[in-house]
Amino acid sequence: MSTPETTPDFTRPPTAAEIRAAAARLAGRVVRTPLLESPELSEQLGFRLLLKAECLQRAGAFKFRGALNRMDQIPADQRAGGVVAFSSGNHAQGVAAAAKALSMPAVIVMPADAPAVKLAATRALGGEVVTYDRVREDREAIGAALAAEHGAALVKPFDDGGVIAGQATVGLEIAAQAAEIGARLDTALICCSGGGLAAGIALALEMDAPGARVRTAEPTGFDDAARSLAAGRLEEPNAQLDGSICDALLAPQLGRIPWEILRDRAGPGLSADDDAARRAMAAALRHFRLVLEPGGAIALACALTHAAQLRGQTVAVVASGGNVDPLVYADAIARFS
Amino acid sequence: MSTPETTPDFTRPPTAAEIRAAAARLAGRVVRTPLLESPELSEQLGFRLLLKAECLQRAGAFKFRGALNRMDQIPADQRAGGVVAFSSGNHAQGVAAAAKALSMPAVIVMPADAPAVKLAATRALGGEVVTYDRVREDREAIGAALAAEHGAALVKPFDDGGVIAGQATVGLEIAAQAAEIGARLDTALICCSGGGLAAGIALALEMDAPGARVRTAEPTGFDDAARSLAAGRLEEPNAQLDGSICDALLAPQLGRIPWEILRDRAGPGLSADDDAARRAMAAALRHFRLVLEPGGAIALACALTHAAQLRGQTVAVVASGGNVDPLVYADAIARFS
Repeated sequence: MSTPETTPDFTRPPTAAEIRAAAARLAGRVVRTPLLESPELSEQLGFRLLLKAECLQRAGAFKFRGALNRMDQIPADQRAGGVVAFSSGNHAQGVAAAAKALSMPAVIVMPADAPAVKLAATRALGGEVVTYDRVREDREAIGAALAAEHGAALVKPFDDGGVIAGQATVGLEIAAQAAEIGARLDTALICCSGGGLAAGIALALEMDAPGARVRTAEPTGFDDAARSLAAGRLEEPNAQLDGSICDALLAPQLGRIPWEILRDRAGPGLSADDDAARRAMAAALRHFRLVLEPGGAIALACALTHAAQLRGQTVAVVASGGNVDPLVYADAIARFS
Repeated sequence: MSTPETTPDFTRPPTAAEIRAAAARLAGRVVRTPLLESPELSEQLGFRLLLKAECLQRAGAFKFRGALNRMDQIPADQRAGGVVAFSSGNHAQGVAAAAKALSMPAVIVMPADAPAVKLAATRALGGEVVTYDRVREDREAIGAALAAEHGAALVKPFDDGGVIAGQATVGLEIAAQAAEIGARLDTALICCSGGGLAAGIALALEMDAPGARVRTAEPTGFDDAARSLAAGRLEEPNAQLDGSICDALLAPQLGRIPWEILRDRAGPGLSADDDAARRAMAAALRHFRLVLEPGGAIALACALTHAAQLRGQTVAVVASGGNVDPLVYADAIARFS
């Protein structure tokens, strides 16, 4: 697809046409991750669980889709300054990988306490990493300042229509892959922090699997999406900014655009605690031979924890990422298998 | 595809037409596992590595393909007696899963020292498990006796044209998926024990990716395929029957039909030791977010160990299975990451 001459409007939800264009743009450049099924696990749970293995995506998480879709639309004359992104780790790696694919420089603002494996992987992908204090400093301000300084485009992690359109391609694939096996989706269970993935999938399923209910999955105590969906308005940010092993899901609040999309298209939200996430990581190993990071396992954790609510349904569960410190992973597996 | 009225001849290598028929028979019933790539790993290694993630197959290994293809061709009037199989674990699970899919009873002869997770999974799939002493007893004789007793069809793990045709579909997919990303395969590196997978892939690549060299991967000390390919004749069985963590790869010798196929289509063979397998398991976690069992990692282990021999090439590496005891897995990851 040729580089556009002007930047489209990324400050609003993507249209259906923009989501189809994203799918065309990403075809052959992202992994069409499989939708896996374990009849034995489904039997145990009392519902049909279809796992979207997005941990197999380039750079280990769905984030590569949104980053590449967004960055591919940066006009040619604005590419020299590169990109700036802020991220707890997966968006960092997605942006770094996309920048490498597009031969652009990338500066990534990451929390100093991000998993070492994510910091190292972002650097290995060629990203220049700038760390900040996640609790005391404002990453958005740091990112904006760096973008101005470098003459770079800021690639936001979720509050951007182009990013959301990229994440929506996960939903188009789920709809197509469910149809391929003759499954009619009742529910899609999707991790939610800033909400870009859940919002994108909600739009995509509305297009290609209408009738499927989108439900958000969050770590206990970081459930602003569930609270907001229940209240019908954007609720207060999460009280805590750390204290969960789900390092990928600690954004203080849903983004504005994701909320605009999700408010009428999702709910009720579910949550699960850290041990449930660890049990889900062990279940993903045993039943699917997949390595999930804690945040990437939270939707599966909610599915396992709240199975009774899903009885008899066909449920797509998104396994969103697998960038986990091997020692953290080995510990979870040893304790919860 | 309708059930044939008579059983085809499974005592010879499958024809190209039989391999195409296997692909048609299995379409939509097996996972089309992704061919994954990590540009960063490829850069490190000095060759382009494409990993066929067959650990994502139903029941956790490629074996489901061969079992289903073979069992689907058992004539209707011979199905009531069910099937008997002997296996170190992955063929056991593959046959049990295929039997469940076809609503047939299955008796599986497994070594008493098979990983507990494989014994349990085979039972969970509905298979009746009969254990034997792998070093002192002859599993083929036990299997034949049980088959006669039950009036059941014996589904051999590798020395069967129908099973090999099923495994060959891995090769057809590799060829198609490499073509989809514009890659021209120089080498395919495939674990080898009885040789069914390597033989099937060799036939498939001859059909759809001619010019790709098939090389076998074996645990050190269990390298009868490498020895036989070097000598040009079927060499003595391996001296040991245990002593490697690669529990899936301890068949004493290549099967007759696999050897007939491989002798002019493969080599030279490679091998790697247990620690190399553990390192490959850690690399699969880090670079691909995949859980591999030791035997399923041996081809990747050979690729990592013998990278210098592969420099500049495009190499398909088959990750054949992921049925590993979680504690064994966690230990390998903790020690070798």
